[in-house]
Amino acid sequence: MTVSYDDVLAAARRIEGRVLRTPVIEIAEGLFLKLEGLQHSGSFKVRGAFNRMLSAHVPAAGVIAASGGNHGLAVAYAARALGVRAEIFVPVVSSPVKVAGLRALGAEVTQTGAIYSEAAGAAAKRAAETGALEVHAYDHPAVVAGQGTLGLEVMEQTGGVDTILIAVGGGGFVAGVTVGAGAGAGAVAPGGAAAVRVGTAGAVNEGGHAPTIVAVEPELIPTLHEALKAGAPVPVAVSGVAADALGATRLGDVAYEIVSKAEIQSLLVSDDAIEAARRTLWAEHRVVAEHAGATAYAALLSGGYARGRGERVAVVVCGSNTDPATLA
Amino acid sequence: MTVSYDDVLAAARRIEGRVLRTPVIEIAEGLFLKLEGLQHSGSFKVRGAFNRMLSAHVPAAGVIAASGGNHGLAVAYAARALGVRAEIFVPVVSSPVKVAGLRALGAEVTQTGAIYSEAAGAAAKRAAETGALEVHAYDHPAVVAGQGTLGLEVMEQTGGVDTILIAVGGGGFVAGVTVGAGAGAGAVAPGGAAAVRVGTAGAVNEGGHAPTIVAVEPELIPTLHEALKAGAPVPVAVSGVAADALGATRLGDVAYEIVSKAEIQSLLVSDDAIEAARRTLWAEHRVVAEHAGATAYAALLSGGYARGRGERVAVVVCGSNTDPATLA
Repeated sequence: MTVSYDDVLAAARRIEGRVLRTPVIEIAEGLFLKLEGLQHSGSFKVRGAFNRMLSAHVPAAGVIAASGGNHGLAVAYAARALGVRAEIFVPVVSSPVKVAGLRALGAEVTQTGAIYSEAAGAAAKRAAETGALEVHAYDHPAVVAGQGTLGLEVMEQTGGVDTILIAVGGGGFVAGVTVGAGAGAGAVAPGGAAAVRVGTAGAVNEGGHAPTIVAVEPELIPTLHEALKAGAPVPVAVSGVAADALGATRLGDVAYEIVSKAEIQSLLVSDDAIEAARRTLWAEHRVVAEHAGATAYAALLSGGYARGRGERVAVVVCGSNTDPATLA
Repeated sequence: MTVSYDDVLAAARRIEGRVLRTPVIEIAEGLFLKLEGLQHSGSFKVRGAFNRMLSAHVPAAGVIAASGGNHGLAVAYAARALGVRAEIFVPVVSSPVKVAGLRALGAEVTQTGAIYSEAAGAAAKRAAETGALEVHAYDHPAVVAGQGTLGLEVMEQTGGVDTILIAVGGGGFVAGVTVGAGAGAGAVAPGGAAAVRVGTAGAVNEGGHAPTIVAVEPELIPTLHEALKAGAPVPVAVSGVAADALGATRLGDVAYEIVSKAEIQSLLVSDDAIEAARRTLWAEHRVVAEHAGATAYAALLSGGYARGRGERVAVVVCGSNTDPATLA
């Protein structure tokens, strides 16, 4: 149930041409933004969705997914691209923009449950009835491997960084990127396995070490933080500005196995810091981010993560599915 | 008074590290968007502003500029970066967002005149009084050479294209990019001078030919179109959705000398087509463009420019200084 660097490389080959190699900009010397909000469907989720659908048999009943919104958009986008049917279950808190987007992509949408886990339960029940392929939002190795392709890209596009700041919901993204960036278990020793593995993808840090992964979560949705503290995924309460996209109530098992062995750093940020990061990304850098998409940058802007002198840092802006009127 | 490929290369060296090498995304096979809206100050104008200020002596009175908005923002940004004083004259039609942006960058702002040319007259008078360095919005070789650095980048980042679609206001941008992309006078013969010149910058088309430049203007501001028809720059009436950024009333002389010899194509698009392009750039590609920034894409989306089979096309999205609320 774990995911290897080779799995991520295989995913990259599988989804090539289906997803964008989104750009990286250097906003200050050695400080990079990975602009994944420009990805098809507006977030990184399409990487995992394509990898899942292209590495399994999709029956006539099509695919089914539950999602706070972005995963649903990604599954709907990928299903349309592959010509298969998609049913999407979303919690009632999902933004109208996202629900309208799902329908515009041809998906059948059911709004049910107050939070993600309730929508997921309904989707699982429906999948058992119809035989549709379930595309989990985060807790599946093929989904994690797909998300990990962003880690490969960040290392290649920057020529290597010391640190990657990334937001966490259910953990599939951070786990995949941890592996894809060469920072998985057994890859942390400078000059050791990481150098070889990252080198495979054409990029290696100065000194050949794997990057440190800094996992950033809203204080109000600490799924990873609490899992690491408890020694296992545990249920958490979910609220705040980023709940529509990061609102998983429990870290995924696939993610936990990877991140608990990789010694990643866990940081929490306030909703105010996320709001400020979102406004600054637009005002200073003309980057549109939804709240979840601004969460990693919030750690840097608020000082929660202090960048060292000369430290090369990549910040992942992971989604742009937001009403632009709220940026003004 | 003309601008050579070497001038553009020199500008690129001069402004390196001051401006972003903005990203290019490939939205369909062989169809590229150059995301210049992510540039510092929100548009390409900062390229010319830096090159002008770094290739001249800036007196204690600082710099002075007249601008529909974007050039003013760029001059204010560059002046702040270089630690010099900036006075900016803008027409009264300039958007409140832009004026506020100018003041936030520390510039002294004077709003005067109904259109760009009236603000420009006031700025020239003021410059004569104070001795400040005038940074023209388009009609100066150093400005044109600076804008041309985008042409170099497009060719390098795409590995070469057959066609570049680009919006036109006063003509400094299209003229610079024409030269920078290796499509200036004497550079159009396949395998001829262009192959050598573009090759200098590390990129060359298949077949070694220079790209065709397609200059796109709003029907309501046809400065280039009318200049080519008349055989010289002539005054035009200015109106429509893109007037705040493309509202020059007459093509610049530096630009005319370049574009009239380069045999570029001139196309006009309706304001409706610009609006549609702007909405599509956001909805489909999560790219924020102001009206001027969406003008080149409008030619493609409306069918005004028909892309040939296998034709490699770069569309320049040149500015993002807009109120995001108007995208919803």
